[in-house]
Amino acid sequence: MSIFLSEMAGTAMLALLGCGVVANVVLNQTKGNNSGWIVIAFGWGVAVFVGVFVAAKGSGAHLNPAVTLAFAWLHKIEWSQVPVYIVGQFLGAMIGATLAWLSYYKHFGATDNAAAKLGVFCNSPAIPNTTANLATEIIGTFALVFAVLYMAAPAASLGALDALPAGLVVLGIGLSLGGPTGYAINPARDMGPRIMHALLPIPNKGNSGWSYSWIPVVGPVVGGLLAAIVFDMLQ
Amino acid sequence: MSIFLSEMAGTAMLALLGCGVVANVVLNQTKGNNSGWIVIAFGWGVAVFVGVFVAAKGSGAHLNPAVTLAFAWLHKIEWSQVPVYIVGQFLGAMIGATLAWLSYYKHFGATDNAAAKLGVFCNSPAIPNTTANLATEIIGTFALVFAVLYMAAPAASLGALDALPAGLVVLGIGLSLGGPTGYAINPARDMGPRIMHALLPIPNKGNSGWSYSWIPVVGPVVGGLLAAIVFDMLQ
Amino acid sequence: MSIFLSEMAGTAMLALLGCGVVANVVLNQTKGNNSGWIVIAFGWGVAVFVGVFVAAKGSGAHLNPAVTLAFAWLHKIEWSQVPVYIVGQFLGAMIGATLAWLSYYKHFGATDNAAAKLGVFCNSPAIPNTTANLATEIIGTFALVFAVLYMAAPAASLGALDALPAGLVVLGIGLSLGGPTGYAINPARDMGPRIMHALLPIPNKGNSGWSYSWIPVVGPVVGGLLAAIVFDMLQ
Amino acid sequence: MSIFLSEMAGTAMLALLGCGVVANVVLNQTKGNNSGWIVIAFGWGVAVFVGVFVAAKGSGAHLNPAVTLAFAWLHKIEWSQVPVYIVGQFLGAMIGATLAWLSYYKHFGATDNAAAKLGVFCNSPAIPNTTANLATEIIGTFALVFAVLYMAAPAASLGALDALPAGLVVLGIGLSLGGPTGYAINPARDMGPRIMHALLPIPNKGNSGWSYSWIPVVGPVVGGLLAAIVFDMLQ
Repeated sequence: MSIFLSEMAGTAMLALLGCGVVANVVLNQTKGNNSGWIVIAFGWGVAVFVGVFVAAKGSGAHLNPAVTLAFAWLHKIEWSQVPVYIVGQFLGAMIGATLAWLSYYKHFGATDNAAAKLGVFCNSPAIPNTTANLATEIIGTFALVFAVLYMAAPAASLGALDALPAGLVVLGIGLSLGGPTGYAINPARDMGPRIMHALLPIPNKGNSGWSYSWIPVVGPVVGGLLAAIVFDMLQ
Repeated sequence: MSIFLSEMAGTAMLALLGCGVVANVVLNQTKGNNSGWIVIAFGWGVAVFVGVFVAAKGSGAHLNPAVTLAFAWLHKIEWSQVPVYIVGQFLGAMIGATLAWLSYYKHFGATDNAAAKLGVFCNSPAIPNTTANLATEIIGTFALVFAVLYMAAPAASLGALDALPAGLVVLGIGLSLGGPTGYAINPARDMGPRIMHALLPIPNKGNSGWSYSWIPVVGPVVGGLLAAIVFDMLQ
Repeated sequence: MSIFLSEMAGTAMLALLGCGVVANVVLNQTKGNNSGWIVIAFGWGVAVFVGVFVAAKGSGAHLNPAVTLAFAWLHKIEWSQVPVYIVGQFLGAMIGATLAWLSYYKHFGATDNAAAKLGVFCNSPAIPNTTANLATEIIGTFALVFAVLYMAAPAASLGALDALPAGLVVLGIGLSLGGPTGYAINPARDMGPRIMHALLPIPNKGNSGWSYSWIPVVGPVVGGLLAAIVFDMLQ
Repeated sequence: MSIFLSEMAGTAMLALLGCGVVANVVLNQTKGNNSGWIVIAFGWGVAVFVGVFVAAKGSGAHLNPAVTLAFAWLHKIEWSQVPVYIVGQFLGAMIGATLAWLSYYKHFGATDNAAAKLGVFCNSPAIPNTTANLATEIIGTFALVFAVLYMAAPAASLGALDALPAGLVVLGIGLSLGGPTGYAINPARDMGPRIMHALLPIPNKGNSGWSYSWIPVVGPVVGGLLAAIVFDMLQ
């Protein structure tokens, strides 16, 4: 129960600040409107920093099913614990996205662009192409989980002192590998808010991009497991 | 007395650097004119970093009535200490805003836009709406105080080593949740400088936005107490 | 073998994130298109941070032949170890550049500008001039290696706690000294990806800039040795 | 002698990276041309970080006559040591500015604007006004030295672990208080490079701004001593 609540709280903070920064940049009439990729990348980096800080003590701050699965693959947590982590992560991401929507409530009303409104919640590719988009998400998540495994070693958890390194890695992946797909690199971060986009009463919201939605789930899972395998080979 | 002076000095540094960065971005003929939201958000983040550094030893660096009230609610400081903290915070914010105004003295004269001049001191909403603006300030302050409570635990104070995490959290809230209202998230930071805007001889300054001024007070108090309650439930 | 694999893994992460950030900024239709020098400089800074983190334990995270040669010059590693480090660094840079190319595969197809495509892999001078370009690379690498020697002292290695300082130094060199030549400051980082540019099936890629390619090798080697000499004199 | 060499080396790194970032932003045909105030402010912040790292062990990394005088005022160093520090700082700033000029040699030739070329070396006010410019430099240096005294306490020196806080403070002062005068906040940083501007064979360089040059000396000295006095009163 402690793990569940901790992952939920940490992932909620992550999604609140992460979805929030996209809202600030892409929605109309905000103070940060059109302020650029550097704002997006730093916003998500700090979102991870805060999420890790909040969830470090209670659950080791996975905040991402790809991280949880990598730790399970390496026998560092029990497979029976995996669902507890992942359900907490999904619920947290849904709560955080909802709070971000509330924070920008009037700005959703002031924005016509349905793609921008969807972008606050979840990812769409810059150039749609199944193979290429999947490859980008696999490589991005590989980089994330590979780095996280070095931070966490020999444990299966991130502590408060890992919050800054973890945030910096996500800053770097955003700056460097976010260009083609918007760097989901986390199934809960993409699918949880996408579900809320479908459920919430957002004016003129358009569809929720379900045809793309499996890529930010499958890509991160594959990338995270590959990172675990390569990490293991190098030890 | 030590607490009072420490909170005053730390909050003065916070308001000097915080009001200063807005002046640099919005006033005419500055070297940082129109340099964007990333400058604003980093300026306020570093402002908090410096403020915490200065006030860490003397008072535990609350620098914000919402933080002080959350600690009191959790019985981590005496209620009798609360006014000492808050008066120090308000006076510090007034001193810092005055120093920022002196630093940019000629640029206030070179700027016609009364809203820009008010924005150096305190917040105005992007889209005025009482319910939505209040919700944004509640959620933003919730995020701030919730994260600060994890940093401070088990104590009721921030040390020098918490200055960087605290600054990063405020950077993140600015990037992610500052879009609708400019993220007061601190009654002293908004009301103290607003009082100075009313008192100082600023040319063509217009009104001081009193009709909005209660929202950056009530929102942060509510958000801070909600953070204390949720934090307490999760322990 | 541990040194070889560690340098290869660390330099691969460095080149993946480093080449990736240039791709995001200069290739067409990316989400970070034209997002500016601050994105480039932070992207490379975090690339070094992640690379050092990954290679700290296994090899002391040189990640750069100029650093390895400086340590050898100061008798802190055996000359016989130098080839192991350098081959690992070159192979790692080639792997990382290839992964960056795969991540942005469709965007290479969407970009006509051959110079932009080459810029993802390696450097070209803003104003071609052999003496001036060489001087810039010597001074930039001097700054890098001089700072790294202070971080590493008295050892010949960077640990996980040196990852942030090393990343910040590279951030600073990018911001401050990257303007004339794009700051190779590392023979492996420039030549390894340049070889991959020549080998990979990139559409309409133009030549690989071989006439300039010796400057980002010779300049960093000279700058690194000068840093070792001056560092030694100051002890 | 150790103090002299250490201050010289550290201030040389500071001025190399500091003057360099201005060159990258303001000179023609650089890769960072016109990249904005965020680049300037981060460039100087990292310049201080690197300078403190290099000079921490040898001299306690003052790097600034205003800092040295504040420590002397508080009886933390001998007055007889003050000239050793200050001469090292001035020589270092002159060396660093010369290396920055060499790094951007061809770009000085490609730039017509004499004010831009002077700006690489030293400061000019956005709106010239003796009282206001002096006030801005006093307040900015007060903020710097006041924060540094808290970092250094109880010693009169900055160690390697103070490099990041010191760099962040300078980042913040640049973002927040650099708008009116360009934040000299250090007599050696402004006057040393200004002397080199007068001496070096820079094409079409115009005058070296001597009529303004006393303000970035007197302002920082006054601001630093005021910080020492206020710091002392608060203990």
